[in-house]
Amino acid sequence: MSIPPGAIRLSVTDLHEAVDDPALTSMTLLNELAGRYPEAVSFSAGRPFEGFYDVEDLSRHLRTFKSYLEEVKGLPAQDVRRTFFQYGRTKGFIHELIARQLRIDEGLTVDPESIVVTTGCQEAMVLLLRALVRDARDVILAATPNYVGFIGAARVAGAPLREVREGAGGIDLEDLQRQIDAARREGLRPRACYVVPDFANPSGASMSLADRRALLELARRQQILVIEDNPYSLFRAGGSPLPMLKALDEHRQVIHLGSFAKSAFAGARVGYVIADQPVTPAGASSAQPVLLADHLAKLKSMVTLNTSTVAQAVIGGYLLDNGCSLKRATAREAEVYRRNLAALLDGLESVFAPAPGAPRDVSWNTPQGGMFVVVTLPFPADDDMLEYSASQFGVLWTPMHHFYGGTGGFHQARLSFSVLTPEQIALGVERLGKLVQDQRARVRLLDAA
Amino acid sequence: MSIPPGAIRLSVTDLHEAVDDPALTSMTLLNELAGRYPEAVSFSAGRPFEGFYDVEDLSRHLRTFKSYLEEVKGLPAQDVRRTFFQYGRTKGFIHELIARQLRIDEGLTVDPESIVVTTGCQEAMVLLLRALVRDARDVILAATPNYVGFIGAARVAGAPLREVREGAGGIDLEDLQRQIDAARREGLRPRACYVVPDFANPSGASMSLADRRALLELARRQQILVIEDNPYSLFRAGGSPLPMLKALDEHRQVIHLGSFAKSAFAGARVGYVIADQPVTPAGASSAQPVLLADHLAKLKSMVTLNTSTVAQAVIGGYLLDNGCSLKRATAREAEVYRRNLAALLDGLESVFAPAPGAPRDVSWNTPQGGMFVVVTLPFPADDDMLEYSASQFGVLWTPMHHFYGGTGGFHQARLSFSVLTPEQIALGVERLGKLVQDQRARVRLLDAA
Repeated sequence: MSIPPGAIRLSVTDLHEAVDDPALTSMTLLNELAGRYPEAVSFSAGRPFEGFYDVEDLSRHLRTFKSYLEEVKGLPAQDVRRTFFQYGRTKGFIHELIARQLRIDEGLTVDPESIVVTTGCQEAMVLLLRALVRDARDVILAATPNYVGFIGAARVAGAPLREVREGAGGIDLEDLQRQIDAARREGLRPRACYVVPDFANPSGASMSLADRRALLELARRQQILVIEDNPYSLFRAGGSPLPMLKALDEHRQVIHLGSFAKSAFAGARVGYVIADQPVTPAGASSAQPVLLADHLAKLKSMVTLNTSTVAQAVIGGYLLDNGCSLKRATAREAEVYRRNLAALLDGLESVFAPAPGAPRDVSWNTPQGGMFVVVTLPFPADDDMLEYSASQFGVLWTPMHHFYGGTGGFHQARLSFSVLTPEQIALGVERLGKLVQDQRARVRLLDAA
Repeated sequence: MSIPPGAIRLSVTDLHEAVDDPALTSMTLLNELAGRYPEAVSFSAGRPFEGFYDVEDLSRHLRTFKSYLEEVKGLPAQDVRRTFFQYGRTKGFIHELIARQLRIDEGLTVDPESIVVTTGCQEAMVLLLRALVRDARDVILAATPNYVGFIGAARVAGAPLREVREGAGGIDLEDLQRQIDAARREGLRPRACYVVPDFANPSGASMSLADRRALLELARRQQILVIEDNPYSLFRAGGSPLPMLKALDEHRQVIHLGSFAKSAFAGARVGYVIADQPVTPAGASSAQPVLLADHLAKLKSMVTLNTSTVAQAVIGGYLLDNGCSLKRATAREAEVYRRNLAALLDGLESVFAPAPGAPRDVSWNTPQGGMFVVVTLPFPADDDMLEYSASQFGVLWTPMHHFYGGTGGFHQARLSFSVLTPEQIALGVERLGKLVQDQRARVRLLDAA
């Protein structure tokens, strides 16, 4: 950077501390490593499979949505034009199509008025966290390891997070109860608990039906909200589909976050939040309650006004072109992820199966879907080891400790398999095996010395 | 709203106070009035003229942008697809085209790396205000009356605003100095001053060249930043064009906010911020500074990740289809606004010219461009009067006091003329004249009683 003499000089210590967030800085490092070792097999890219994308589809979806406005909604030409080009309804204009998709795919009936279409699920998190944190007493609970996007949203929204343990079956409900109790003893107000019930990012963990019901019961007893984020449930590879928390929600305790990033496409930045909770106005207890969705929309009008009309129109057309079923729309991608998950689990088993009599020093979980598997290694899986792995063995992965806020996961690596071929997966696991052999040899040398 | 028995019940007093912001509630009322009186002539709609929009243009712009990626940037098919569909560069991918537009239209050279493409100018304000307010001492200065979007961004970002007086020539520099001094005496840190140098919303005021230079000099002396927002400078109806503040900025004091809402189209939600300020990293004074743009990008990655790829591609194609000149692209709209401004000023003169010998009790400013004229009325122009005006006389306008945060503008109305025809403008002014006559008669009755 060339700086002219006399230029104003700012210091990062004068900026909001979120700009220097460690989790974010780690993600920047990961991207940078991927750029420096382009030949490495990357198990770190969490993005969706892109093999079926076609730029021509965009114009087709736009045409479909235009026809829908004209023919189904019966809008005159002037209103069609306004829908595409002008500032629009803050809550968005594809809410009815989203409600239809939820009915078709999930058997869930929601009032379209309770949906706020957002600039990706990320904005929905920011709006929600901003709304739920009124003062320094409010606190949000979340399982650890946690999705890095939720951690970031909490940082920028100024929402304090309190960690809850996670097991193989997702969030640990006993620890959740403990954390709620402890927070209350400290004079804090636990407002909501964030969970990803199916194939969580980064752990791959899923909640059982019994735990889903128990979570809702606990939340009801404690009068806290449940924030459900469920982008991976479409990509089940085995076992029976389980209902979303929102589909089990009888008392409007669940705020559901929706995403099209893993179904339609990530770049659109279209997501949504279902917030059908009644909110009592200030002062007037007799006044009609307002939907939480309408309060979130007010915040949205201060952050991005409305979600991009052209992006909404593309997603609306995509839904219409697929009969408003994401299951149907993503059938091909789901097949790719199933194939890749099987290839990864097969590869791990064949590379890391211990010799007869030898102890197993590499283990992994076996999620029944999603995009992530977590491997536990016999050495610290930190940023230095990642760089060594990339430069010496040509394989990239994501150190899990980034998702623990420095409190765990030090021997774990997240392996993402969404954008690889089975051949790349086999090669990547083979290279990971060489890294493990190298580290085992190093330990033996140290032991011998 | 039908609420199931036993539903969780929230109170607005438990939500962040921004959800109950009075400025925002007023805007909701305005929209609601426009819906209730569809036959009224509305001088309250601030949106751009939509007569030249054509939905087919969207696909054309997408094609143009695709060809640009293939032929000019030389991207292989796979990378073109990724650009359109995947998560992308947080700072955006049309930064080079924006830099080209600024060179062509404004003679301004900026490093494309200092540009962050945002989800409309609104997100740029939120990111910037969030970044600049580290703790309770930090304060942002802004002229009053102020743009409601900036007020909203400050509320949601938790940035305290300190009001500076505005005159016919824009921000009052003497009062700015006074406010900076007063803030410092109170132990506060004035960080930046927000200004709209050309045809401000809502006042229509513009700064002279001398004042632009004096503002930069004052900011330099005081080591504060200047936040420039300039969406209306394209729509000049008379007088000579003046340079943007960023074009006069020799010491990187100016952070420039850009918008395509008034040029390409509002629904796209594509804007940007130029933030070429060097930021020194913490601790290491010898370390290389980082562009403020890169810190804003980190915050953006927590709010919306990247700006919608399809929206960026449409705006990129729009720029390319217009030789990267917004002046050229908006020539037809500019002509409409010039025609409408003349019709409004003519109408006001013919309806409100006082009879010979009578005092002038209605006055207005005469901006040389933009979309807004402010009328001062001989009675309070509040929300009740607006409703009376809509129901009895069929004319809507915007009470100016909303933009003063309750500290002024009580007799003023903003008249927006962007989406009307000259005939509607003449009719609207005639109706406004009847409202004034009605109020004059009421005063005479009261005086006689």
